Amino acid sequence: MTERAHDPDLVGRTETLFALSNGWLGLRGAHEEGRPAHEPGMFIAGLHETWPIEYAEDAYGLAKTGQTIVAAPDASLLKLYVDDDPLYLPGAQLLDYERALDLRAGTLVRTLTWELRDGKQVRVRSWRLVSLQHRHVAAFRYEVTLLNADAPVVLSSALLNRQDATPRDVAAAAADPRTTKRLGHRVFEPAHHAAAGTRVLLGYRLARSGLTLGCGVEHTVASPDPYQLEVSASADRGNLTLTVDATAGTTLVVDKFAAYHTSEQVPAAELVVRAARTLDRVARHGWDVLADAQRARLDELWDRADVTVALAAAQPADAAPRPQLSGPEPEPKAWQPAELAQAIRWNVFQVLQATAQTGHGGVPAKGLTGSGYEGHYFWDSEVYVNPFLTYCAPRAARNLLAFRYRMLDKARDRARELGEQGALFPWRTITGEEASAYYQAGTAQYHINADVAHALAKYVRATGDDGLLVEFGAEILLETARLWVSLGFYGRDGAFHLHAVTGPDEYTAVVNDNTFTNLMARRNLRYAADVLAWLERSHPQRFAQLAAATGLEPGEQARWRCAADAMFVPFDAALGIHPQDAHFLDLEPWDFDAVPADRYPLLLHYHPLVIYRSQVCKQADVLLAMLLAGDEFTLECKRRNVDYYDPITTGDSSLSAPVQAIAAAEVGYDDLAQRHFAAAALTDLADVHGNAVDGVHVASAGGVWMTLVYGFAGLRDHDGTLSLTPQLPATWQRLTFTLAVRGLLLRVAVSHDAVDLAVDASVGRASAAAAQQVEVVVAGERMVVPAGTQRSVSLRASAA
Amino acid sequence: MTERAHDPDLVGRTETLFALSNGWLGLRGAHEEGRPAHEPGMFIAGLHETWPIEYAEDAYGLAKTGQTIVAAPDASLLKLYVDDDPLYLPGAQLLDYERALDLRAGTLVRTLTWELRDGKQVRVRSWRLVSLQHRHVAAFRYEVTLLNADAPVVLSSALLNRQDATPRDVAAAAADPRTTKRLGHRVFEPAHHAAAGTRVLLGYRLARSGLTLGCGVEHTVASPDPYQLEVSASADRGNLTLTVDATAGTTLVVDKFAAYHTSEQVPAAELVVRAARTLDRVARHGWDVLADAQRARLDELWDRADVTVALAAAQPADAAPRPQLSGPEPEPKAWQPAELAQAIRWNVFQVLQATAQTGHGGVPAKGLTGSGYEGHYFWDSEVYVNPFLTYCAPRAARNLLAFRYRMLDKARDRARELGEQGALFPWRTITGEEASAYYQAGTAQYHINADVAHALAKYVRATGDDGLLVEFGAEILLETARLWVSLGFYGRDGAFHLHAVTGPDEYTAVVNDNTFTNLMARRNLRYAADVLAWLERSHPQRFAQLAAATGLEPGEQARWRCAADAMFVPFDAALGIHPQDAHFLDLEPWDFDAVPADRYPLLLHYHPLVIYRSQVCKQADVLLAMLLAGDEFTLECKRRNVDYYDPITTGDSSLSAPVQAIAAAEVGYDDLAQRHFAAAALTDLADVHGNAVDGVHVASAGGVWMTLVYGFAGLRDHDGTLSLTPQLPATWQRLTFTLAVRGLLLRVAVSHDAVDLAVDASVGRASAAAAQQVEVVVAGERMVVPAGTQRSVSLRASAA
Repeated sequence: MTERAHDPDLVGRTETLFALSNGWLGLRGAHEEGRPAHEPGMFIAGLHETWPIEYAEDAYGLAKTGQTIVAAPDASLLKLYVDDDPLYLPGAQLLDYERALDLRAGTLVRTLTWELRDGKQVRVRSWRLVSLQHRHVAAFRYEVTLLNADAPVVLSSALLNRQDATPRDVAAAAADPRTTKRLGHRVFEPAHHAAAGTRVLLGYRLARSGLTLGCGVEHTVASPDPYQLEVSASADRGNLTLTVDATAGTTLVVDKFAAYHTSEQVPAAELVVRAARTLDRVARHGWDVLADAQRARLDELWDRADVTVALAAAQPADAAPRPQLSGPEPEPKAWQPAELAQAIRWNVFQVLQATAQTGHGGVPAKGLTGSGYEGHYFWDSEVYVNPFLTYCAPRAARNLLAFRYRMLDKARDRARELGEQGALFPWRTITGEEASAYYQAGTAQYHINADVAHALAKYVRATGDDGLLVEFGAEILLETARLWVSLGFYGRDGAFHLHAVTGPDEYTAVVNDNTFTNLMARRNLRYAADVLAWLERSHPQRFAQLAAATGLEPGEQARWRCAADAMFVPFDAALGIHPQDAHFLDLEPWDFDAVPADRYPLLLHYHPLVIYRSQVCKQADVLLAMLLAGDEFTLECKRRNVDYYDPITTGDSSLSAPVQAIAAAEVGYDDLAQRHFAAAALTDLADVHGNAVDGVHVASAGGVWMTLVYGFAGLRDHDGTLSLTPQLPATWQRLTFTLAVRGLLLRVAVSHDAVDLAVDASVGRASAAAAQQVEVVVAGERMVVPAGTQRSVSLRASAA
Repeated sequence: MTERAHDPDLVGRTETLFALSNGWLGLRGAHEEGRPAHEPGMFIAGLHETWPIEYAEDAYGLAKTGQTIVAAPDASLLKLYVDDDPLYLPGAQLLDYERALDLRAGTLVRTLTWELRDGKQVRVRSWRLVSLQHRHVAAFRYEVTLLNADAPVVLSSALLNRQDATPRDVAAAAADPRTTKRLGHRVFEPAHHAAAGTRVLLGYRLARSGLTLGCGVEHTVASPDPYQLEVSASADRGNLTLTVDATAGTTLVVDKFAAYHTSEQVPAAELVVRAARTLDRVARHGWDVLADAQRARLDELWDRADVTVALAAAQPADAAPRPQLSGPEPEPKAWQPAELAQAIRWNVFQVLQATAQTGHGGVPAKGLTGSGYEGHYFWDSEVYVNPFLTYCAPRAARNLLAFRYRMLDKARDRARELGEQGALFPWRTITGEEASAYYQAGTAQYHINADVAHALAKYVRATGDDGLLVEFGAEILLETARLWVSLGFYGRDGAFHLHAVTGPDEYTAVVNDNTFTNLMARRNLRYAADVLAWLERSHPQRFAQLAAATGLEPGEQARWRCAADAMFVPFDAALGIHPQDAHFLDLEPWDFDAVPADRYPLLLHYHPLVIYRSQVCKQADVLLAMLLAGDEFTLECKRRNVDYYDPITTGDSSLSAPVQAIAAAEVGYDDLAQRHFAAAALTDLADVHGNAVDGVHVASAGGVWMTLVYGFAGLRDHDGTLSLTPQLPATWQRLTFTLAVRGLLLRVAVSHDAVDLAVDASVGRASAAAAQQVEVVVAGERMVVPAGTQRSVSLRASAA
């Protein structure tokens, strides 16, 4: 992805679009020169500060401790002075300029030629990477060439604590609930600073969370001209200043390596020592070794994750059925091939870099590309990121599930606070404690429990990793199932009801019997019972130990099945649709005609009560149930649901478009599916929601992959059976992608005529447990593809 | 009411129980000596500070400006030193002690004898009053007599700004949403201070609200012994120190007069001048004139407000029907005659003193006896205080309605913010702006609109004051009716629905079709249409002017009637009851057996979601509808409703007991009615809710009067027709009270045998408009009682 001119108005957005991350360390795409900038900086997974949430009107059990991701000291600063004039992009005369995110190399590269007032021309090239191999490491290369004259050159490199240095605009941020909390206190308490040679080291303890941080930067200088170095450090910054009497035609190269270590317990001083050791190593290896390793790692990742689309040469006439839409509708998009490829790959890259180093924290809503949503983890990772990981990077999927497990004790405590048995995972969190200060759209989203169980089931079935169940999966399932039985009750109608919950759609809240929640809870209950029964048979000792540890009583699993069997699922026979909740259809229709375009998203323009009392959806809810629990709907019912809900869904949440696209594809609404796909694919690239500055919408990026694979290729994996029912857009010729299935790699190519399947002969890391073949149901026909072979299924034949 | 020993543990509660007020100026019942104290101080109607409400997760339209009553500078301090030892009650040896609230005199009187370590005995007597005649004035008399020895006596009198002097415990207060907000900033910005002679004057501007205050104290000293005076003033306090070489047997008398003036605009310096003028006058008149006027004013008030009960000599066996109760049940209470009389009169006195000077502000939930609920006005005044005022102090009722009218413009703005037409009164406020930071139990209580309309209709019908309708009543009715039509919609069933509202019961929130709200809105709509039709006929010019000013369109009133006629009112035919809202009966029953007594009130021990999803009520909701819209229920239906709701109503709100008592009385549950009556009558006296320290529950006090008059005497006044259907408790012999009806005073005496009615010959202030007779339906029989006559209706005869 390439930027061909510097536009100061796009500074914030490009910080997001050009952000780099490895899932543990993240770096916004701000320029090395430090200004202009919107919210520059670096983030580290789990590095957060806490603050006491105060309520003007408090109530029992409300979340008490706010958690906010904070900016780690910024190592990206490299300020250039020529003739003592600073390079400041908005004011500089640039003869050429290009900035590109290299998705294969995993680097951000900028090249520009700067002409000073007196005609001196300076070529500046810079590269940066956040190492996908070494989670603690980021690196920068900065090249300066005087093209036509000698001049004194100064390069000032810094490691800067921005968190406590930058005044932040509290008033502006307060208006939008999607932005981050502004902390009022000093966060980084200085614990250590040192400067020597070409190195700077800083250490801190975070004031309230107590987390510790050690970080540092090391430099190597290659200059044909003589130079001087000065290095210094103070509490909030370290500096290295390089002064060169540069001669025309020579090139100065500075490599800067940054290392970060954090801990919950280890003193900052010790972390600084670790950072120093990291710097020793990477500086010894040098830039090229890091860059080569980065490309090699990405080659591996792309081999599994790449999705390609070939567009049809001629665009056929739109003959597909299309629903009558009354509500907001995404724009149609006529893709150019390169543009489409780039959009897909940029989104996939975002998920890759958000998850390359998992297991040390969750995947925040914005990855580590911005502080939006306070760096909290939501259900995004389970529902929008886990499918991709399960099929493209199963180890990362496992790490994220293990990370959820580490929250289980806190989830147990939270269930107790909410008056329930079992465990209730937090709606939004960094530490595992609930941090939602608006419980109606937070804690009330009990479906988070079922989302975790869903992700777990999907992972286990796709990978065959039963060991996860033994290790911790069964325990998660047991405690989440318990929550549902405790939460619900048998009503006067004999059915099992879940009341006062909020479903995925946040434009209704605290409703009774949300269809999505009830369906997902039912699956949670049944899967938990199944897994415990399996565990008792296959691992009786582990079962006994788990039963003892959790106080599992005889008959508990039977009660789960009983509740599941009696689960109430709203259905309106007259309309043939599933009401979003028990009383959704009784609500007043939303008057879409009366709402001008500038009043979206509604949440910024209407009081919650106004929204809640209307039939208007922020995001797909029943449609999401149709994806995750799709085997419980008939195709006809799905179509009716799409006809009903798609027009009343504003898509004010970026989580919506992929699901709407997949639903539309499944019921054959080609045009609608493509519109929603475009909205998803361009969420950040075209700033569809106007808040790309706050960071990448990682779930949406995961949703783009899902739309391609679940939507257009029609992958379904209910109960572990893989099936493909392609709904390739009429304007597309071919779609290819790869799925890791039980240790094997299944290469899929979908065209209008056929589905080509190939299973790699060589297996991946999970080779010991790898299966010998992959089974897939294609357009209704069961295919078995042994490793090292390929199959082709004609779609025309099977349709005949 | 008398306290016979000093108990430091009861300091907070007695500050409330012995508080004095005139409805504009209030004084907590703290001792003159200043310590020990819980939250001593003085309050002035409307004297508040504002603060920005911050939400950890904000949303559109949430209340932005917090409003909190603040403590005015305290004039009550008179510290006594004998032999330089301070009188400190917990440490002093008291030979006798008595403190009494004189409900006829309107004074708080304390008498004690203090024996010092060396045997010297000092008699101390003090009186205080807050003038019911002169709203700006409070006065204190302090008498010191050395009984058996000479001694130096020092009396230190102060006027102290406590608001900014006292550190307040933020953490403790945050846990209970019923307490007040603790402000973190300096509130009273000093604008003026002066001391001269026997006088101190202070002036302030409040930092954020911008209100101004001028106040002062003046002293007169009567001493047979020579004395010295020193007077001083600084920003936060003024002092007068009196030093006397007192001789045994002589009595030192100090009278202290306090004056307060506030404004939204006038500079503090000008208010200080006004306070000085007030002090000139009251000091010239002296204590006795004030005290005599106080008693005279109370004589007038009691003549209309007193309620007497004669208990039966022997307690008859309980033969009344009694429902099967499963839920929390108030304790039975065996009253002694004096105790019952005192409890009734204390409660009536609280309403009298909370409303003696109305029209300058509303009636806060705690009157001016404490800072609970931040000094906010709720619906309490319309529903719980207005009935008493309408029948015992109609001018005060009118003043309160006029005060609501002054909020109408802000209510119009608020409706717009909530996306509606018309006006929406704030759920809690001081300034007229919504101050509820928890909209689910605040803004969502749209019924406030109908409560205002209800109070207005009751007042107009009982007084015949049609002028109020012309002046502003019609305008309130018009805008409140508009809100309902805008808020609601015609559902698929053709009925008119009001969704996402909260009814009186705050243990469910944001429900659909709350029965109370829908019934009350229907009455609001119809009364508005009736009044506008009447106005058009009788005052066509005013009508035209109003229509033009409000943009009243042709057919609007017809739409109100249409919505009223189509209004959905939940009814469950199988149970024969009104569900509290459309889906209340679908909720899970609350497991009362599993909840120990120390977990009440539930709001302090359960997350809102846990409470909301259960069939458990904080307070009467349907039962309140049965009182306010009682002509829309059959008696049988009322009985079934009582049977259903009484057992599941926790009474965690003090607003509940009176309504439960009245409902129980109406359906003939004598014992239950008496239990609830006792809970209401003892709410503060026995600290039933554990928070009497925060101030008097004024609505509960009004509810006590309502229980006597509406409950046990069975007064009903739907559509202006007065009726009495007594349900006198079996253990009671006789109940008497007075009702002001259209300018006449109707004296009512109810016994088991008869209802005696008498109409005074002399009419009150509203004599010009007074009717010539009062019509009452007694036990079904229409009685006409001309002024100056009396009638008796035999109940035995009519029952035969």
